[in-house]
Amino acid sequence: MKATICRKIRFNAAHRLHVPDWDAQTNFKVFGKCNNPNYHGHNYVLEVKVRGEIDPVSGYVMDMKILKALLENEVEDKFDHKNLNLDTSEFKDLNPTAENIAAVIYNNLRLKIENTKELTLILHETENNSVEYNGK
Amino acid sequence: MKATICRKIRFNAAHRLHVPDWDAQTNFKVFGKCNNPNYHGHNYVLEVKVRGEIDPVSGYVMDMKILKALLENEVEDKFDHKNLNLDTSEFKDLNPTAENIAAVIYNNLRLKIENTKELTLILHETENNSVEYNGK
Amino acid sequence: MKATICRKIRFNAAHRLHVPDWDAQTNFKVFGKCNNPNYHGHNYVLEVKVRGEIDPVSGYVMDMKILKALLENEVEDKFDHKNLNLDTSEFKDLNPTAENIAAVIYNNLRLKIENTKELTLILHETENNSVEYNGK
Amino acid sequence: MKATICRKIRFNAAHRLHVPDWDAQTNFKVFGKCNNPNYHGHNYVLEVKVRGEIDPVSGYVMDMKILKALLENEVEDKFDHKNLNLDTSEFKDLNPTAENIAAVIYNNLRLKIENTKELTLILHETENNSVEYNGK
Amino acid sequence: MKATICRKIRFNAAHRLHVPDWDAQTNFKVFGKCNNPNYHGHNYVLEVKVRGEIDPVSGYVMDMKILKALLENEVEDKFDHKNLNLDTSEFKDLNPTAENIAAVIYNNLRLKIENTKELTLILHETENNSVEYNGK
Amino acid sequence: MKATICRKIRFNAAHRLHVPDWDAQTNFKVFGKCNNPNYHGHNYVLEVKVRGEIDPVSGYVMDMKILKALLENEVEDKFDHKNLNLDTSEFKDLNPTAENIAAVIYNNLRLKIENTKELTLILHETENNSVEYNGK
Repeated sequence: MKATICRKIRFNAAHRLHVPDWDAQTNFKVFGKCNNPNYHGHNYVLEVKVRGEIDPVSGYVMDMKILKALLENEVEDKFDHKNLNLDTSEFKDLNPTAENIAAVIYNNLRLKIENTKELTLILHETENNSVEYNGK
Repeated sequence: MKATICRKIRFNAAHRLHVPDWDAQTNFKVFGKCNNPNYHGHNYVLEVKVRGEIDPVSGYVMDMKILKALLENEVEDKFDHKNLNLDTSEFKDLNPTAENIAAVIYNNLRLKIENTKELTLILHETENNSVEYNGK
Repeated sequence: MKATICRKIRFNAAHRLHVPDWDAQTNFKVFGKCNNPNYHGHNYVLEVKVRGEIDPVSGYVMDMKILKALLENEVEDKFDHKNLNLDTSEFKDLNPTAENIAAVIYNNLRLKIENTKELTLILHETENNSVEYNGK
Repeated sequence: MKATICRKIRFNAAHRLHVPDWDAQTNFKVFGKCNNPNYHGHNYVLEVKVRGEIDPVSGYVMDMKILKALLENEVEDKFDHKNLNLDTSEFKDLNPTAENIAAVIYNNLRLKIENTKELTLILHETENNSVEYNGK
Repeated sequence: MKATICRKIRFNAAHRLHVPDWDAQTNFKVFGKCNNPNYHGHNYVLEVKVRGEIDPVSGYVMDMKILKALLENEVEDKFDHKNLNLDTSEFKDLNPTAENIAAVIYNNLRLKIENTKELTLILHETENNSVEYNGK
Repeated sequence: MKATICRKIRFNAAHRLHVPDWDAQTNFKVFGKCNNPNYHGHNYVLEVKVRGEIDPVSGYVMDMKILKALLENEVEDKFDHKNLNLDTSEFKDLNPTAENIAAVIYNNLRLKIENTKELTLILHETENNSVEYNGK
């Protein structure tokens, strides 16, 4: 039988929403306060869901310690206490909306989790705003 | 690629669960304390999920400011600090269970969100009770 | 040595804020949407704090089962799924603001908890609004 | 139309993760601190989701009072304030991982909820770790 | 009788912890990742507590609508979606630690709330870190 | 000026409430299900509050990294994933009620935090039950 395990982690980062091809007025119209050229920031909460067979001996879908270590390497080390626009290669040319942050982390994690397991991410940007991404 | 954005809003309302075609005993048996003729109330928390393509330029599935404004018009203005049974046209002849409240709000919102986007609602009536509705 | 134990309970009720001696305009100016004559409602969360000596044998300030039973009798049975204005003797002539609800419950509980113990209440009316009352 | 109702309950239990066929070193490597022979414990939070048709008269998918009573019988009475390994028949020969606890409760509940209704469980073992199980 | 009302608000901001008089090594030793020259950010949650007499007629310590409007002017408009170091006059020459942010907001609010009322702030920088300040 | 910083940590442990000098009936009457001889367990959440002067240069009451490390040594290493009755010296002869756990941790921490700073602990045993202790 299959189950879906979920691990929640947090990272705190600065970002700015901005499309270089648009003029200042369009950027402000679409992104509002999130377009502040001096950046603002969030406490991001990421839920990582891995679905797969329950191992009949261990009773685990996946060892949470291994998932935890993977998330420390691939998410916390890369993004925690960073400026997403300035400090990360992933958002040099990609607008760091919650949708794009979730997709970038998904793509990074997808490479490290075996393909027999399904992967879904939920990224909370604020208490009221979140986004879900599963690569489909 | 697609993603699902989620916006959470709150509204505080009074309601009474009651089926006029049933006698008092049946109403009390089914609805218990929720059948109080003088009403009781809740802090409703509504999660609104919209699934669609991530715009490759903006990085948005949908502008959260637009979704926020829509929810203020269609949910907060209509239901916040209201008596659902007495103050709203939707529940004049419909029992305001969490299931029906979710369905009514879904139907109102479905008309205002383009059909290429999927819509799902989760309505929390108390900390322990909630209902999910997606029109299927 | 002393410690403060805290028990959290919930009750869901309807209410209306209204001062009979004021005209409609003043009531609306002060109480806004909370003055709706058809009532609205909340999921109230009450934290009850009791401070006293830790019994050196049991290790308890007070048996939580006894506090829980007291709160069921004095708070849940009286106020849960009630219309505070219509269904309770306490608010027949008292405006059921969060401040007054906290004071009423405090006075009810104070009679049932021995005077060597200090009592403090925190009443949450919404996620963002609360009131603390300790009879001083 | 269908909706999914969700009821959340809690139970506090001790457990130990251990596979008798493995040696001590392997058990510690896989289960780490969770292998402590003297047990440790958790405040488990269980979300029980039942999906079915909304009854057009009552407006209910299922009476929450009935679901609540079922969960008290099948979950709280069996597992609350218990040692899962020592006090329950279900985990005499089954490792009480979150995955297996969710599957055991699912199987118990599935027998008591009519088959026209779908059942999904989410079991939170800590604030950051959870598992979802739907029998598929 | 007196009561303490509490209003919770949120603002999302970028900041950097840095003491200009210290060398880079000392700044990194004390502030660690928070010293990142490109800034990072947080979802700040602020609890504002106002203690005063319960008005015997209205049943209010203070009109929450007035407190809410004050916090929108003095906190949200000044700090939400801002870079605290670059966009605000208050932190031009003051290190924006949680302690200092709380003290600055306290001083701003203290001028606008009558002196018969006591004021206390709790500022949450992350889920696990917060600071309380009451001007004493 | 002074401020109070607060750090929240978690530990998961098993325990049994039991007074050896009492007979089985008295133990069950007072401690109920918590007297289970096979133990049960909790996800404990501990809030540690330290009050002191804000350093005028750093803007810190105390370096949170130092407090975090102290709590890992004195709380997590000692109590996480432990059986409080069997695995710890502190509760060999002391009933591990929430009151006593808070007092024990307070006494341990008090030795490691300079005396110019005030210390207060809040220990949450369940979502609804907690205890506050400050050594007075």
